[in-house]
Amino acid sequence: MSLAPAKLRWAARDRKPEGSIVDVAGVPVGSREVVMMAGPCTVEDEDQLLRTAMAVKVAGARMLRGGAFKPRTSPHSFRGLKEEGLRLLSQVAREVGIPVVTEAMDARQLDAVCQHADMVQIGSRNMQNFTLLEEVGRLRVPVLLKRGLCSTLEEMLFAAEYIAEGGNQQIVLCERGIRTFETSTRNTLDLNAVPLLKLMSHFPVIVDPSHGTGRRELVVPLSRAAVAAGADGLLVEVHVDPERAKCDGEQSLTIPGFGELMEQLRPVARAVDRAL
Amino acid sequence: MSLAPAKLRWAARDRKPEGSIVDVAGVPVGSREVVMMAGPCTVEDEDQLLRTAMAVKVAGARMLRGGAFKPRTSPHSFRGLKEEGLRLLSQVAREVGIPVVTEAMDARQLDAVCQHADMVQIGSRNMQNFTLLEEVGRLRVPVLLKRGLCSTLEEMLFAAEYIAEGGNQQIVLCERGIRTFETSTRNTLDLNAVPLLKLMSHFPVIVDPSHGTGRRELVVPLSRAAVAAGADGLLVEVHVDPERAKCDGEQSLTIPGFGELMEQLRPVARAVDRAL
Amino acid sequence: MSLAPAKLRWAARDRKPEGSIVDVAGVPVGSREVVMMAGPCTVEDEDQLLRTAMAVKVAGARMLRGGAFKPRTSPHSFRGLKEEGLRLLSQVAREVGIPVVTEAMDARQLDAVCQHADMVQIGSRNMQNFTLLEEVGRLRVPVLLKRGLCSTLEEMLFAAEYIAEGGNQQIVLCERGIRTFETSTRNTLDLNAVPLLKLMSHFPVIVDPSHGTGRRELVVPLSRAAVAAGADGLLVEVHVDPERAKCDGEQSLTIPGFGELMEQLRPVARAVDRAL
Amino acid sequence: MSLAPAKLRWAARDRKPEGSIVDVAGVPVGSREVVMMAGPCTVEDEDQLLRTAMAVKVAGARMLRGGAFKPRTSPHSFRGLKEEGLRLLSQVAREVGIPVVTEAMDARQLDAVCQHADMVQIGSRNMQNFTLLEEVGRLRVPVLLKRGLCSTLEEMLFAAEYIAEGGNQQIVLCERGIRTFETSTRNTLDLNAVPLLKLMSHFPVIVDPSHGTGRRELVVPLSRAAVAAGADGLLVEVHVDPERAKCDGEQSLTIPGFGELMEQLRPVARAVDRAL
Repeated sequence: MSLAPAKLRWAARDRKPEGSIVDVAGVPVGSREVVMMAGPCTVEDEDQLLRTAMAVKVAGARMLRGGAFKPRTSPHSFRGLKEEGLRLLSQVAREVGIPVVTEAMDARQLDAVCQHADMVQIGSRNMQNFTLLEEVGRLRVPVLLKRGLCSTLEEMLFAAEYIAEGGNQQIVLCERGIRTFETSTRNTLDLNAVPLLKLMSHFPVIVDPSHGTGRRELVVPLSRAAVAAGADGLLVEVHVDPERAKCDGEQSLTIPGFGELMEQLRPVARAVDRAL
Repeated sequence: MSLAPAKLRWAARDRKPEGSIVDVAGVPVGSREVVMMAGPCTVEDEDQLLRTAMAVKVAGARMLRGGAFKPRTSPHSFRGLKEEGLRLLSQVAREVGIPVVTEAMDARQLDAVCQHADMVQIGSRNMQNFTLLEEVGRLRVPVLLKRGLCSTLEEMLFAAEYIAEGGNQQIVLCERGIRTFETSTRNTLDLNAVPLLKLMSHFPVIVDPSHGTGRRELVVPLSRAAVAAGADGLLVEVHVDPERAKCDGEQSLTIPGFGELMEQLRPVARAVDRAL
Repeated sequence: MSLAPAKLRWAARDRKPEGSIVDVAGVPVGSREVVMMAGPCTVEDEDQLLRTAMAVKVAGARMLRGGAFKPRTSPHSFRGLKEEGLRLLSQVAREVGIPVVTEAMDARQLDAVCQHADMVQIGSRNMQNFTLLEEVGRLRVPVLLKRGLCSTLEEMLFAAEYIAEGGNQQIVLCERGIRTFETSTRNTLDLNAVPLLKLMSHFPVIVDPSHGTGRRELVVPLSRAAVAAGADGLLVEVHVDPERAKCDGEQSLTIPGFGELMEQLRPVARAVDRAL
Repeated sequence: MSLAPAKLRWAARDRKPEGSIVDVAGVPVGSREVVMMAGPCTVEDEDQLLRTAMAVKVAGARMLRGGAFKPRTSPHSFRGLKEEGLRLLSQVAREVGIPVVTEAMDARQLDAVCQHADMVQIGSRNMQNFTLLEEVGRLRVPVLLKRGLCSTLEEMLFAAEYIAEGGNQQIVLCERGIRTFETSTRNTLDLNAVPLLKLMSHFPVIVDPSHGTGRRELVVPLSRAAVAAGADGLLVEVHVDPERAKCDGEQSLTIPGFGELMEQLRPVARAVDRAL
């Protein structure tokens, strides 16, 4: 029995019952290993990025994350270093020897993003930006597709279907919290999504506990929970000095905090027959 | 007392306490007149569009609506006639003598849309497509900004702020239903938004009862309610043969149904000192 | 075509296609007249209640509302005058000559409430308190059933069904706002509920714009909208001095404010062929 | 730093920073051991209950669950064996030697429930049935307080506060899924609640993955996730023959399924330094 919506041609589990593995510059997402992607919400400067990248790599992260183009609710907020941020990302990634994922907010940014990054992120607000999905579907680059703030899992799989329809099957799905009535967290991380997406689709599924909760003190327990639920990876915000972060400091781990997270995740990964 | 978020520079009511009027090819939105915008969900062919446009104009609509580029959950659904649809829209609009509003889903469609339409619609899924908002902010074209499916009113005003920051102040806000737990309607039309947006901002506010409810039998009572709540206009789906519509037939009025709507709205508009 | 869930035996529209009229001590709810029920959130003292009751009656209210037993989130908040509040309600109601509705929170309060009030209110938090519904179903007293904060319309009709199953068909349904992600209002008043409940069921439907929005400045426009949508009545909080109210002052109208509301509602009621 | 709302006198973490342990007839909830509570949604007959109770005890459950009074959306659904169900529960619990938890829907059922059960459950629909909370606060019986379908964590702690205010501190909090827009699961299990409630309050926190997801195939992965997030126990529906269950069969584990769940949970519990 497949749980996927009947009209999915590419994203349904039946299409590849053994599950897909997406190769991001040598890092296999969807394999036995739980892949840790870590880094700052926003690229701020070279020093910040380099120190973070080295530290998370040493602690066990397999990929670097960092925002150059930042979607912000208000036009008056800091919106990222843009092209300069992309250059810093690729320079630091090469120096440290770690693949990098970063967001493209628009089809016209795709060229620059693909030139500098190993994986393109489609953010929550763009999960149903269908022209962006189509454009990224024409490329041959790994895509990290984040769930929309109020998107159903069915809608998310149809968003993946847009990308796959163009010929690009290198898709990783990411649960990152949904909007509910609850006010004590920024979003409600929906871990039901992990086993359900895996039953419905063959694409790997990762979890972003930083945006999913919006509070640093919840990142460790929810990361353990995500791995126990079967996630293929985690996307975690880490900052050298969260108090001074230009964006989302209250949900970023410190570098020692990230080390502690790795410590706590290893036995959980083993308990569900995964490596970390 | 202004209810607007503190950081709004352009969209706050204080900026223009008397309220803005947006001129769309001679039709003033935000004046004493409640402006009816009507037409098919999707442009299907010339005959359908022309018959609908003539009929809604005769019944009292001041603007024609119709989709050429259609955002659809699944890539396998009909996604509009695209450029051909735009051409039909402008041809019919000229023939009938009625301004037209249609959606642009991407910055790269803006040129074509602006060439053929009098007002550009930013759809719900793109309310936080910030690059699209910035691009439309650089133009001098009236913009219909629809509320995102799970966007707060504050986020909606910041989306308007993105457009206004670029210099384009010709913005009309549109409530079109939000996503809630309720399953007996497609969306939950949030009429609180009408007086609240008008308290918070100087931009005109219209309502889309067709998407807001998703059910034809609710369009008339909710349209009356929207006008009574103070809406500056309505955006209504009308189809010559809803049973055969390629999209959203179950929420489209027939042509006689639109006439009946106009009949029922006139006394309500008068009751709140508006004309129709 | 009935829109009601298939398993409704008593609440479905088909059961009484012409609609029910509920008689509350001589006031017919569900007739051509839009019935105004007004009064303080909470009974505080005799003077407050008497002045409010006289003023709202003079302005056109047909029923008095007021809480004696108050459900409060925290046990440390003021929870009403209880039995003393009931006595004040019935004394003032007799003096002023106006029927009164008040809430019973528990089956054991029903005797006292029925002795002093003309209509029993089942509050939002108790919409699925099934033993209370069954008890009230055994009585022959008019019931005001408020929608639960996150109850679907189908669940609401099944709650009415519990009451009706016991033999009590004197039920008035009340939309009072639902819980959504939106934070600028206390609740999201769902006016879709008005025409939809009337299509699904024969019971009268009224609206509580005070709880539905939580903000005084929204009560007038949403009341107009509710009447335009087809509501059979309104339940409105009015206080002689909202700044000093023990509960919900920010959503209560002043006495002149209630007079202004009545002024504005009359033409809207006429516009939809209703009296007020 | 306490995260609890300022006005909590009894439920705040500060009140008992080391955390509370609730003793249910010898089973300590809130200790190092993750406590498994298992059994049928509804008591149907002696044979069903006895076989289930023995099987779950052998597999490692420490408590039996089972409904005698069943809150059902429709009055026409099976609503439990009531007093007869209570008698069966206590008889089987004695025979098998396992404490039992069951729901009381009304203050008037408390005597009977307390006579037959070791722990009283306050169900989701009654989380804000304040008179029931007050009554149970006067007793000296362990209470399982389930989160309301759309209750915030703050509201849940205030519900616990009602019970504690009466003098009864033997409270276990239970996350059981909230209502959101997502339609592919019955509810959205909110595992953020586990670490957050533990930061805010000293009461133990358990999780009900059966109602939380509504789908059998999600119970195992979400149970693992709940334990990894720090839950002090799980409440799981188990039926000897789910296809024939009178209620909620689609979310009930079979008896072998429960054994498999225990197998999978043990290494996860060890990974987070807990016993099972």
